[in-house]
Amino acid sequence: MSRVFNFSAGPAALPDAVLERVRDDIPDWNGTGMSVMEISHRSKDFMAVAAKAEQDFRDLLAIPDDYSVLFTQGGATLQFAMVPLNLSAKGDTVDYVLTGSWSKKAIVEAENHCDVNIVADASARHFTDIPAQESWRRSNDAAYLHYTPNETIAGVEFHFVPEVGDTPLVADMSSTILSRPLDISQFGVIYAGAQKNIGPAGLTLVIVRNDLLDRARSSIPKLLRYSIYAESDSMSNTPPVFAWYVAGLVFENLKKQGGLAAMAENNERKSAKLYAAIDNSDFYSNPVRRDCRSWMNVTFTLKDASLDGKFLAESTAAGLTNLKGHRSVGGMRASIYNAVPEAAVDALIEFMLEFEKANG
Amino acid sequence: MSRVFNFSAGPAALPDAVLERVRDDIPDWNGTGMSVMEISHRSKDFMAVAAKAEQDFRDLLAIPDDYSVLFTQGGATLQFAMVPLNLSAKGDTVDYVLTGSWSKKAIVEAENHCDVNIVADASARHFTDIPAQESWRRSNDAAYLHYTPNETIAGVEFHFVPEVGDTPLVADMSSTILSRPLDISQFGVIYAGAQKNIGPAGLTLVIVRNDLLDRARSSIPKLLRYSIYAESDSMSNTPPVFAWYVAGLVFENLKKQGGLAAMAENNERKSAKLYAAIDNSDFYSNPVRRDCRSWMNVTFTLKDASLDGKFLAESTAAGLTNLKGHRSVGGMRASIYNAVPEAAVDALIEFMLEFEKANG
Repeated sequence: MSRVFNFSAGPAALPDAVLERVRDDIPDWNGTGMSVMEISHRSKDFMAVAAKAEQDFRDLLAIPDDYSVLFTQGGATLQFAMVPLNLSAKGDTVDYVLTGSWSKKAIVEAENHCDVNIVADASARHFTDIPAQESWRRSNDAAYLHYTPNETIAGVEFHFVPEVGDTPLVADMSSTILSRPLDISQFGVIYAGAQKNIGPAGLTLVIVRNDLLDRARSSIPKLLRYSIYAESDSMSNTPPVFAWYVAGLVFENLKKQGGLAAMAENNERKSAKLYAAIDNSDFYSNPVRRDCRSWMNVTFTLKDASLDGKFLAESTAAGLTNLKGHRSVGGMRASIYNAVPEAAVDALIEFMLEFEKANG
Repeated sequence: MSRVFNFSAGPAALPDAVLERVRDDIPDWNGTGMSVMEISHRSKDFMAVAAKAEQDFRDLLAIPDDYSVLFTQGGATLQFAMVPLNLSAKGDTVDYVLTGSWSKKAIVEAENHCDVNIVADASARHFTDIPAQESWRRSNDAAYLHYTPNETIAGVEFHFVPEVGDTPLVADMSSTILSRPLDISQFGVIYAGAQKNIGPAGLTLVIVRNDLLDRARSSIPKLLRYSIYAESDSMSNTPPVFAWYVAGLVFENLKKQGGLAAMAENNERKSAKLYAAIDNSDFYSNPVRRDCRSWMNVTFTLKDASLDGKFLAESTAAGLTNLKGHRSVGGMRASIYNAVPEAAVDALIEFMLEFEKANG
């Protein structure tokens, strides 16, 4: 086993222990003589896996009983449409906070289905901060308020949950779910593509408060309707069986490691030491306001951008992969999700110091 | 490795060689130091896998250049909505052939979006045959005609392609794609959930003639629009990377085995010997008209249904698994997709003979 430290923004690193288990379960899983990829979703064996995965996920996030957990497909991108189609009527006003590329995409899709009111817009500052809630211009009658707690491209994160009274709060947690404990009762809907902190791409988890399940528009396709998943334990059609099973292994692994309180400690510590290395240097810099910096996606630029190619080539050669920043902002990005070990961050910091010494 | 013969209707058996390769690629795939589950869909490594998978699929089916191949999510069930939303306007008439549970589901969803004309209905005969095309009552102005070439529950299959002139022909090939050569130019759209002959559940392939890409309704969600996938090589958002990779291994494996001409020979021979064993017995029977019998899903009942439990227990103990028929029809079903070897069929026939001898 020759593994690298993988800083990919997503699909992203999975825990070594999970991968070893997946490997050992092929081609004979659980004494069935079959792999998990070859098992009916309605078989007793898989139903047990599915139920345990949901329960472990509920335990990790302390999800109250009046919320359903849905195992869906289509990623956050399909949720950008499912949220307005399930929670609003045509002509309704909906509130969106614009803090980066992902919230922008959510807004563009919602505009096909509702009247979107942008309550705050951080684009003029290149998405380097989160607008303070006091400055938001909320509508009086929004069907819901949508925000993106973590934006992967600039690397900004809400370190607070917006206060929105009775308005259902909707959050795209694709890149931050399971990184820290949450008070789920503050939310109406949370959704998350799996490919950062949950498991393989192709699975999308949705947490929805049950009283919101009956607001869907009448003519939408069956598979875009939250209630169909809630009523069928997400088995109204064939779910992504293998991805669900891997997600279950990730949840089990997180519980063994001490759950989300332990994750929060790790993630805060991992990101703090990387930001400190950047801030203590004149060679690297990060433009994000300090109280809005992401725990998951740490972006940084080199003083001399002509060294970017060298930095990437040498870091890759040193086993530190996928550090290239998003093409829209350039520079570097270290995505340090739950499964990226602290040793990876330490190795990156050491590499950065040496690179600075040689090239600074 | 202790493998069974797996007759599951889906998710279904995968080739042993593919599973071994998947196992060996974890956790270090292709010398990257990462598994395929941890790789960006936009990475050079994955883009090569994706392109090769598409090319091999095109080669296998001899797909003409004026057709696009889309790698989507949501299974046939989401296609039941995507077909009318992409190919028809509100108020259009669309033609459907009703030959079983799957075509019924397609019709129910289409009725939300169009005026459905059922051109032929085999329900009165419990879906045990395919209505002859001469008896179909087609509309004059249908936006398309939809049929289900293979129905998994009763085990009926079209052994002909309907003649529909200029009307786009749409086929749900989830349970028969890649089982034999096709003349793609006869079709407007073909779609198939992966979990029978392609790969793991969570991936859905669509083949669409390019002149049909501009007929979608204007207000549908971005991810329900065929043209979005066609324009972006199915990468407008994160695709199910792992399932795509496994599908690519299946396609490569099929090419090595001689392609679809070889598959057709195998599948015809495998099913013929199993039907012969049923027909030559007074103990087992199959109600499907002989010229409509499925190559993929062979259903049969025992003369004395009270022996069903014993048959299932003993066959499972003998390593022949998932033979229970669908709950709506009872009896047995042997799904013998491409990856179920002829040795599995031979073992099943031998078991059936012995069971008859002991209990007949």
